[in-house]
Amino acid sequence: MKEDFINCGIIGYGYWGPNLARNFFANNKFRLKGISDINLARLQKARDVYPEVLLCEDYRDIIKDPGIEAVAICTPVFRHYDIAKAALEAGKHILIEKPMTSSLKEGEELLEIAAKNKVKIMVDHTFIYTGAVRKIKEIIDSGEIGDIYYFDSVRVNLGLFQHDINVIWDLAPHDISIMNHLLGVNPIGVTALGADHIGNGLENTAYLYVDYGNELIGHIHVNWLAPVKVRTTLIGGSKKMIVFDDTEPSEKVRVYDKGVEIVNGDVDSIYKTLVQYRTGDMYAPKIDNIEALKLEVDTFYDYIRNDVQIEADGEAGLKVVRILEASQKSIKNDGKRIQL
Amino acid sequence: MKEDFINCGIIGYGYWGPNLARNFFANNKFRLKGISDINLARLQKARDVYPEVLLCEDYRDIIKDPGIEAVAICTPVFRHYDIAKAALEAGKHILIEKPMTSSLKEGEELLEIAAKNKVKIMVDHTFIYTGAVRKIKEIIDSGEIGDIYYFDSVRVNLGLFQHDINVIWDLAPHDISIMNHLLGVNPIGVTALGADHIGNGLENTAYLYVDYGNELIGHIHVNWLAPVKVRTTLIGGSKKMIVFDDTEPSEKVRVYDKGVEIVNGDVDSIYKTLVQYRTGDMYAPKIDNIEALKLEVDTFYDYIRNDVQIEADGEAGLKVVRILEASQKSIKNDGKRIQL
Amino acid sequence: MKEDFINCGIIGYGYWGPNLARNFFANNKFRLKGISDINLARLQKARDVYPEVLLCEDYRDIIKDPGIEAVAICTPVFRHYDIAKAALEAGKHILIEKPMTSSLKEGEELLEIAAKNKVKIMVDHTFIYTGAVRKIKEIIDSGEIGDIYYFDSVRVNLGLFQHDINVIWDLAPHDISIMNHLLGVNPIGVTALGADHIGNGLENTAYLYVDYGNELIGHIHVNWLAPVKVRTTLIGGSKKMIVFDDTEPSEKVRVYDKGVEIVNGDVDSIYKTLVQYRTGDMYAPKIDNIEALKLEVDTFYDYIRNDVQIEADGEAGLKVVRILEASQKSIKNDGKRIQL
Amino acid sequence: MKEDFINCGIIGYGYWGPNLARNFFANNKFRLKGISDINLARLQKARDVYPEVLLCEDYRDIIKDPGIEAVAICTPVFRHYDIAKAALEAGKHILIEKPMTSSLKEGEELLEIAAKNKVKIMVDHTFIYTGAVRKIKEIIDSGEIGDIYYFDSVRVNLGLFQHDINVIWDLAPHDISIMNHLLGVNPIGVTALGADHIGNGLENTAYLYVDYGNELIGHIHVNWLAPVKVRTTLIGGSKKMIVFDDTEPSEKVRVYDKGVEIVNGDVDSIYKTLVQYRTGDMYAPKIDNIEALKLEVDTFYDYIRNDVQIEADGEAGLKVVRILEASQKSIKNDGKRIQL
Repeated sequence: MKEDFINCGIIGYGYWGPNLARNFFANNKFRLKGISDINLARLQKARDVYPEVLLCEDYRDIIKDPGIEAVAICTPVFRHYDIAKAALEAGKHILIEKPMTSSLKEGEELLEIAAKNKVKIMVDHTFIYTGAVRKIKEIIDSGEIGDIYYFDSVRVNLGLFQHDINVIWDLAPHDISIMNHLLGVNPIGVTALGADHIGNGLENTAYLYVDYGNELIGHIHVNWLAPVKVRTTLIGGSKKMIVFDDTEPSEKVRVYDKGVEIVNGDVDSIYKTLVQYRTGDMYAPKIDNIEALKLEVDTFYDYIRNDVQIEADGEAGLKVVRILEASQKSIKNDGKRIQL
Repeated sequence: MKEDFINCGIIGYGYWGPNLARNFFANNKFRLKGISDINLARLQKARDVYPEVLLCEDYRDIIKDPGIEAVAICTPVFRHYDIAKAALEAGKHILIEKPMTSSLKEGEELLEIAAKNKVKIMVDHTFIYTGAVRKIKEIIDSGEIGDIYYFDSVRVNLGLFQHDINVIWDLAPHDISIMNHLLGVNPIGVTALGADHIGNGLENTAYLYVDYGNELIGHIHVNWLAPVKVRTTLIGGSKKMIVFDDTEPSEKVRVYDKGVEIVNGDVDSIYKTLVQYRTGDMYAPKIDNIEALKLEVDTFYDYIRNDVQIEADGEAGLKVVRILEASQKSIKNDGKRIQL
Repeated sequence: MKEDFINCGIIGYGYWGPNLARNFFANNKFRLKGISDINLARLQKARDVYPEVLLCEDYRDIIKDPGIEAVAICTPVFRHYDIAKAALEAGKHILIEKPMTSSLKEGEELLEIAAKNKVKIMVDHTFIYTGAVRKIKEIIDSGEIGDIYYFDSVRVNLGLFQHDINVIWDLAPHDISIMNHLLGVNPIGVTALGADHIGNGLENTAYLYVDYGNELIGHIHVNWLAPVKVRTTLIGGSKKMIVFDDTEPSEKVRVYDKGVEIVNGDVDSIYKTLVQYRTGDMYAPKIDNIEALKLEVDTFYDYIRNDVQIEADGEAGLKVVRILEASQKSIKNDGKRIQL
Repeated sequence: MKEDFINCGIIGYGYWGPNLARNFFANNKFRLKGISDINLARLQKARDVYPEVLLCEDYRDIIKDPGIEAVAICTPVFRHYDIAKAALEAGKHILIEKPMTSSLKEGEELLEIAAKNKVKIMVDHTFIYTGAVRKIKEIIDSGEIGDIYYFDSVRVNLGLFQHDINVIWDLAPHDISIMNHLLGVNPIGVTALGADHIGNGLENTAYLYVDYGNELIGHIHVNWLAPVKVRTTLIGGSKKMIVFDDTEPSEKVRVYDKGVEIVNGDVDSIYKTLVQYRTGDMYAPKIDNIEALKLEVDTFYDYIRNDVQIEADGEAGLKVVRILEASQKSIKNDGKRIQL
């Protein structure tokens, strides 16, 4: 283990917690000291894998532990605020599941508390640490695709219905965090529409339209009720365009040398258009296959110890929650545009 | 040729006219008598293929011809109304390109004129005569997929920019005509959003959300600026779901025995959901590969001669234009919902 | 644990051993008692996961243990014979990796030793316990596809070069075991061809043609040097045909209602053929997703305790080796057909 | 029309003849003067499209016409020799369907006759004039993929059974002509295997293995009885590899920066291999979409008028027939290798 390692704890050992536990355990910059969960069966699973880690049912036992410096919060969303607040006030750095909170107000409070207590908030926007998204970011930042025109993402399949949040809160945080990360500007308006076919008050099919200004738009289709799994993102640029298909085992990212050109010539026919399209090679860059969570955990360390600026900080988490909250308002008002 | 054949003429011999000409020519229920186009080069092409058909630059020569009983109108949309009005008033039946007119008002007038003159309007909603859409309609009507939940269609590629209409008016009539046909109910609201990245005032990327009431929704993504060609429609039902991929050379329609079931059992855990999903076989029905236009032309004959009720009548054309017009209003008002 | 459980040991904890260990450990019909490997680093990995299992470097410690009733042999092929012989002579039942042995002679000896010692040999033909292959077997046995005409399998990708066996011995045992299992008849001749582009005496690209008599043929293409991963099997029948694509995440098996019909009509033209083709629906049956190894381990238990007849017995292992050995002879003789 | 145009005739107006007719007609270097076919219905079709072209039932009327300088022969294979011989002896240049003849002997005679009469033979190896194959040739010739290791082609679907030739003679000429063209060396041995499931003496499923010496191999799988259409060619090189999928509407050619490297380091473990693989980007070059037949017809002109060296000359046609004839011998002798 590294000399200056960080003792950490995990709160919530349900679906995602075990993945974080595995990564903290394998990383020599951290020492996984404690895990809490309200469910004994889950604690037993943790026991089987990490016989020497402290287990507890009450998350406060993790937070009170003076030997623990950082805490990962992997509970359902509605518990995030209380637990995060307690952790931050106890002086712990936190790595918190996305979406960061159930409301913008809660999120803003957490950022204030963190600032006051001089501790760090990182949000688990795992996707932005994947090889595919990092490669896309690199391509965009290099200027290769030119100005970005749109970001269009479809994330649908026959999925587990959540009973406390709708499909936007469940699935769209992935797309929103990727989109915000890649576009690098702040949205100015949100429109959301959807339907609840089961009648439990939670949309299972939804469309989220995000206006970033200057004709830059984002659109996300999320659906728990689709017969096939689709994970496709189109990114249109003035010079090139990208297709990111996350269901592909390899060649997840494809860069198309395609675009349109505005021709300022004479128009001798009513049918002629001034816009012509151009098409060239396509390439699929090699994607680094380091596990995203490994990189994320490394980044968490650098954030805490070295004060390195990171992409998935509390501010980034807040930006995702801002869009989610606006989508909620919009969808409850039949798709009324919500200004941000 | 059939004894009771219909003499017909074609107005407009640009992109689509030649296809109709070929089908009228090959069909023994019709005799292709005249073709008009304002462009001489196009008339020359018609001359090469149909040396014995009467050609003219002025469409009024077609309309004035007392020997012509039916007229196909294949001009740009903005000319539809004038030409169709003249044809109907001259007592001709018309087969008119989609969208039928540039506005609802124009469309309603055409229907009135047709009624007054006791002639028929058929709209060239070609897709509903394809083997794939007819098979989907048959499956839906049989009750096999249960109640329909949503219709979601993506029609994108790197396409020719139109200079007089935006991408919704250009591409969405296909999807809207299919959607209206399959769902069989009238929409109650429309929301449309989009962007014009080229700056010519015409959206090249757009999203159209159609509310059919009772949580039945339609969504259409049309885009002239996408790097790949996508033609995929998802149809979710309470019992089964359909994927229609029109880029597939075979197996265009796939029926998935997938769905959700609401379980009314006890819930012992906060994570448990009352909705469970179910998955079974998939099948791809054999699709009849008669050319859609052939069937359409046959139907046009039956409509005129035998007064058979048809799907693509003027009323159907009007329903498409109603949604298009509402989409226009919505998109110009930043996605304001337009009630129908 | 089941009352009548079987104590077992694993010899070889390299690539495949850990999978078997996990399945024996999780199965209450077995108790994983010991693991041996000549490599200490691997033993350490076993220690991490199974702290209470006995570990040893010398496989003879497993075989000598009177408390162990069954042994899984997961070493490189060239060590199979010695270890299996020792285990069988010590009265252990064995589950042995495929291919069972390096030669037919060795395999026959093992079967004799097993018979003499009244112990069982099962060969780890994992694929025949997958949901996909079990479904295909069910479809074939039901008569649905009619008489089988051919079995054609492609198993290629950029793969790890083995240094002791060529690509046929490495990859084809999968296909041969599936093929023998599905066809259910004995082959009469083998032709194999291939090339060694690296110059180490081991073919990295090879084609194996197996004649089952009566125009029933099998063909296998295996390749370590292909840019893309292909795992596709075509099975042609007189009534229907099957495509098995193991790289598909779902819908691995597709059944096509396609075939040819011999028409005994008059032939009025030299171009007319007496054979017409027929095409109908396609369906993808739901595939059971129980882990194949779990089912295999259950089967091993039933074989030992209940003397249930199994598919992957020593005889089946021998049939695979017979084809492999013949392929070796053929390939070394420029594709000379080897009679079986 | 070009001043120095060539008057040409077409013999055989069945499946392929109309395509050549269309291209000769549209090309201003040629004047399509006559078409012959033994079938009156086909001649009527020619009449509809080319009212001014001379039509005849007897091909000798084409050959006797002193005004015709070049003749395209599009009849069934078994008639090629007689017609080609007559044409060549009459001093006509010929463009002949593939395979050039039914036997090597016939082919050799034709070449001699052509030489004696100072006329040219071009064989209609259309594929080598497609944008995809020309691009692959360009890539190979540039050295980008290094030494070629293998050429593996699969051409299967549910196809029309021919009644005079087996599936190799029907489909493999495509692959053989591409393969010979790309590899650029002469084969030294052929092995062919197949089965006739219908019992008419003609193999409907076959495998053709061509040995080009020095571990360079070609393999072709042709099948009339497959449920799906596959047109995939893998080309392995020492530096890169190519996948050519002709069923793809775009991106038919993909170049993978993948390969193996021989590592001459110490080997500390029995499992370690000296061969390691390497993987980088993939790209799909833009493919020129000029119609292959247009380019072929242009080439035919240049061959006749300008004596330009061409790829698809009689020699190339002979090389294809040589492999086909050897495959016939091999398949009738249970896969005996035939030396070339």
